[in-house]
Amino acid sequence: MSYRAPVSDIAFTLRHIAGLDGELERGTFGDLSADLVDAVLEEAGRFASEEIAPLNAPGDKFGTPLRDGAVTMPPGWKEAYAKWIEGGWASLTGPEDFGGQALPIALSIATQEMWNSGSMAYGIGPTLTFGAIEALHTHASDELKQTYLPKLVSGEWMGTMNLTEPQAGSDLALLRARAEPRGDGTYSIKGTKIFITYGEHDLTDNIVHLVLARLPDAPTGTRGISLFLVPKFLVNDDGSLGERNDVWCQSVEHKLGIHASPTCVMAFGDNDGAVGWLVGEENRGLNCMFTMMNNARLSVGIQGVAIAETAYQQALAYAHERKQGRVPGMSQDEAVPIVAHPDIKRTLMTMRALTAAARAICYETAVATDLAHRSADEAGRKAAQERANLLTPLAKAFSTDIGVEVASMGVQVHGGMGFIEETGAAQHLRDARIAPIYEGTNGIQAIDLVTRKLSMSGGAAVTAFIGDLREVVRQVAEANHPAFGRMGDRLDATIDALERATTWMFEALKSNPDHALAGATPYLRLISLAGGGAALARGALIAHGLDASPANAARIATARFFAENVCPAADGLAETVVGGADTVLDTDAALAS
Amino acid sequence: MSYRAPVSDIAFTLRHIAGLDGELERGTFGDLSADLVDAVLEEAGRFASEEIAPLNAPGDKFGTPLRDGAVTMPPGWKEAYAKWIEGGWASLTGPEDFGGQALPIALSIATQEMWNSGSMAYGIGPTLTFGAIEALHTHASDELKQTYLPKLVSGEWMGTMNLTEPQAGSDLALLRARAEPRGDGTYSIKGTKIFITYGEHDLTDNIVHLVLARLPDAPTGTRGISLFLVPKFLVNDDGSLGERNDVWCQSVEHKLGIHASPTCVMAFGDNDGAVGWLVGEENRGLNCMFTMMNNARLSVGIQGVAIAETAYQQALAYAHERKQGRVPGMSQDEAVPIVAHPDIKRTLMTMRALTAAARAICYETAVATDLAHRSADEAGRKAAQERANLLTPLAKAFSTDIGVEVASMGVQVHGGMGFIEETGAAQHLRDARIAPIYEGTNGIQAIDLVTRKLSMSGGAAVTAFIGDLREVVRQVAEANHPAFGRMGDRLDATIDALERATTWMFEALKSNPDHALAGATPYLRLISLAGGGAALARGALIAHGLDASPANAARIATARFFAENVCPAADGLAETVVGGADTVLDTDAALAS
Repeated sequence: MSYRAPVSDIAFTLRHIAGLDGELERGTFGDLSADLVDAVLEEAGRFASEEIAPLNAPGDKFGTPLRDGAVTMPPGWKEAYAKWIEGGWASLTGPEDFGGQALPIALSIATQEMWNSGSMAYGIGPTLTFGAIEALHTHASDELKQTYLPKLVSGEWMGTMNLTEPQAGSDLALLRARAEPRGDGTYSIKGTKIFITYGEHDLTDNIVHLVLARLPDAPTGTRGISLFLVPKFLVNDDGSLGERNDVWCQSVEHKLGIHASPTCVMAFGDNDGAVGWLVGEENRGLNCMFTMMNNARLSVGIQGVAIAETAYQQALAYAHERKQGRVPGMSQDEAVPIVAHPDIKRTLMTMRALTAAARAICYETAVATDLAHRSADEAGRKAAQERANLLTPLAKAFSTDIGVEVASMGVQVHGGMGFIEETGAAQHLRDARIAPIYEGTNGIQAIDLVTRKLSMSGGAAVTAFIGDLREVVRQVAEANHPAFGRMGDRLDATIDALERATTWMFEALKSNPDHALAGATPYLRLISLAGGGAALARGALIAHGLDASPANAARIATARFFAENVCPAADGLAETVVGGADTVLDTDAALAS
Repeated sequence: MSYRAPVSDIAFTLRHIAGLDGELERGTFGDLSADLVDAVLEEAGRFASEEIAPLNAPGDKFGTPLRDGAVTMPPGWKEAYAKWIEGGWASLTGPEDFGGQALPIALSIATQEMWNSGSMAYGIGPTLTFGAIEALHTHASDELKQTYLPKLVSGEWMGTMNLTEPQAGSDLALLRARAEPRGDGTYSIKGTKIFITYGEHDLTDNIVHLVLARLPDAPTGTRGISLFLVPKFLVNDDGSLGERNDVWCQSVEHKLGIHASPTCVMAFGDNDGAVGWLVGEENRGLNCMFTMMNNARLSVGIQGVAIAETAYQQALAYAHERKQGRVPGMSQDEAVPIVAHPDIKRTLMTMRALTAAARAICYETAVATDLAHRSADEAGRKAAQERANLLTPLAKAFSTDIGVEVASMGVQVHGGMGFIEETGAAQHLRDARIAPIYEGTNGIQAIDLVTRKLSMSGGAAVTAFIGDLREVVRQVAEANHPAFGRMGDRLDATIDALERATTWMFEALKSNPDHALAGATPYLRLISLAGGGAALARGALIAHGLDASPANAARIATARFFAENVCPAADGLAETVVGGADTVLDTDAALAS
């Protein structure tokens, strides 16, 4: 069974739940219309289903072999990428002054979901380029921009982010790569970077590496890190490709999943030195990275949604096809499709509801990110920026956590066939497993949420968010539709639990930060359940106001399932936040080496 | 980092938590002493750590290639197996009349944990042989027993179970393999079986297949299935190997994990017919299978514990070794081991506590299984049998669920390195993923628990179990040790939730069985949290009464962590059981194909 992009649900979530329609009407995105949004999503869905999804299983098998410093992508990938840039997908959100279409990030995130559902190993590639474009557009000199941005925006070249070193992963303070001025305004870059996604490949003629390194005499720690642009091939004045730069792929990792995404060890300057250009100010490299970090995290978050959606579709199709077991009255040589069994229904509904909730959170984050730049007034931009900052760790961590959970449930629904690689369900689990790790582990997201995001505007940002959730519940209660069941009450209880934990967090952050850190992960899950549940409920309210189609009935059923079967975890999560810290921290005896 | 068998914790759990010591004192196991138990565990731990664990990673890489119908096991496996049977490990629980040592199943389960921690692909092999021995010993003719049991018990030959066919997995009613009488007391077996674990290999000279098939004119459904013994090589009257039988491995599956366990498609009788012997009565094959099903499920459950233990050990070692991040006061070029970070502590403690709780449940199940045969009086045997029946689905499903969860957390603790295959953390996740599927999916375990086990003795079995849990809480409250924190209160609330859900289940089973089925999976998790939490608390009480060693402090901390950070999920689980069924069942719109 192959992926079919759920274009209708994607459009509904983007336009109605995440509120893009309101902004379109308000003119926030100029003359962009809902019809155009729908058309873009429709075409992206077609491309993802027809052109990318077929690459996924063969790409997993072929991998990305390295020979003589060159990585060969799996058969068909180069052609698909060429079609993809030809379709204008690379330049969707790119800056207009360098050939981009400057469409909303929210629309890009929706299309990214589809690329990643088609193939996560494919989807991750352009994401790095988007990040490089953003960093260069914001921080690079005009000359660098003129040289590199047009080809990055068009997708003719791709970009990479070179942060990690063996001793410096989550902790960039420890990085050691060096940059020496060469006297001509360029720098000689030396060092080894690991886990470099798409560090080397044959999809494009050039690859533009953004590299963190230290200048001579730079301070230790994160305040001594600068950002450099190091192209695979130097670029001549006329824009043609010049000399090969001294940056080489030393090896490609043998990974659990996303086998068709080349994860490279990159050696900079091992021979005659890699030529690099400074991007932004000296020692302000981390600042340049932060520019793009929120968007990158959101792009990884949507990978969680994407893989969950694919896993769900495949499990649902199998559950309709596979016949085992009987219902009362059937003869012993008949059998029903396993979707008829309540326990399978529960699994599939859990998969569906978690996916829908994570999608809603990601799209809300994306719209807030757009509004942070495009809202008409300063106050609106600030509020949107804080909302985006608050939701980004949820979008990244909750979505990728549920990506793994849903992919694992997908394996389970397949029974023994799920464990056989040819079925494809196991690949989803293997692929999904990286997303909670890269672009800041989910533990780091939770710490970021608790230590940096809760305190924004003295707590006003999270309070405003909780207020918005309460308003949804009020509307659910007011509507009082029989189809909503106990949705309102369950969400109310979920938000109560969130408020209890939030109040405790504010206190702990003042009096005992380690206690707050000990509860960070369950707190992130809790606020995600509340946020996801309320978002789906908002969707149910809107769906109820539209026609009584099966799609709208499904949206209401999914929202109700989430509230009544997923949200009940909220009280226990609040309890672990509020009451669990002592047993987390007092573990010297248990966790002795 | 390689596995070190946690012999002290295994012995503590077996002897104190699961109550083996009391039975040893009572003489239930004849002259078996606690010292002998400890010595056996110690030696098994040595063998698992030194002989089996080194096979694991290379076995994963080598797999089990098939050529000309013969499977080659990875290098070193044949030698390790030979040493293993030489050490007497194959015959540990085997019947004495056929050369076995007739030691408790509980002791076997503890050793199985260690074999599987060393290598799950290794550990699963002998399990099938144990099942074959049990089925033959209980149901086969004396002649079959004399011919096959001595060599199966010694481990010189291995056994397999051939149930599954492409259209008949969980639903054996649909199976089609045929058995025709040959007129000489033997049968000609024809059919294809899939997912046959260790169906073909080179560890032993002969393989004894137990095969479910239908006699001519047998009734449809499960009442028309008979069990047959089909050896790879026929056995001459003098016990030497005769003709090759017509049973061949057609292919070996390409699986997500346990690559060194050959999962075979077996063709019976494609050429001149496979010669088989009837085991037990005609059309009573499923009955013969049930004999061994409980033990087999427990053996798979312990695989969940085993893989969780290995994953935990590896993550803990990495967390002590890997340095990232600082604590206040450190300079920017220093870093602490990540085990110092509260969020990592939470993850590691969760891994540890889930593993310990699942181990306790499995060992309690094993001791109950022993007592079902060995208790002095009929009432004791019946109560023990019911306890074993009640706990077996928990042992199987909860342990294997947490096996996957803990292995996934282990990947996460390793950060980016966790996704690299050479690290080994990912293999644990890949290996762990089969255990919730085979030997009855965990959904089927939950259904079995709810529909068959809750109703035993009119509900008295589960009521007695809950009474035992309450007694532990009473003792915890009475002890009132400061080190126990809020353990008693949290467990009390957990058992309250269990009682609420159990009462509802009794009602639903009468009035609306589909509602009971819809809540089966969260109910199984709930009763496992209560049972596991109480078992660890029992251990904490005992540990507190022993010396104040670091090991005992760790046991108390682990029990308290489980109660205060894992058990809070109980209320939400009860709520989904009691209030979630409507949204599980009313999903036609959402789950339309």
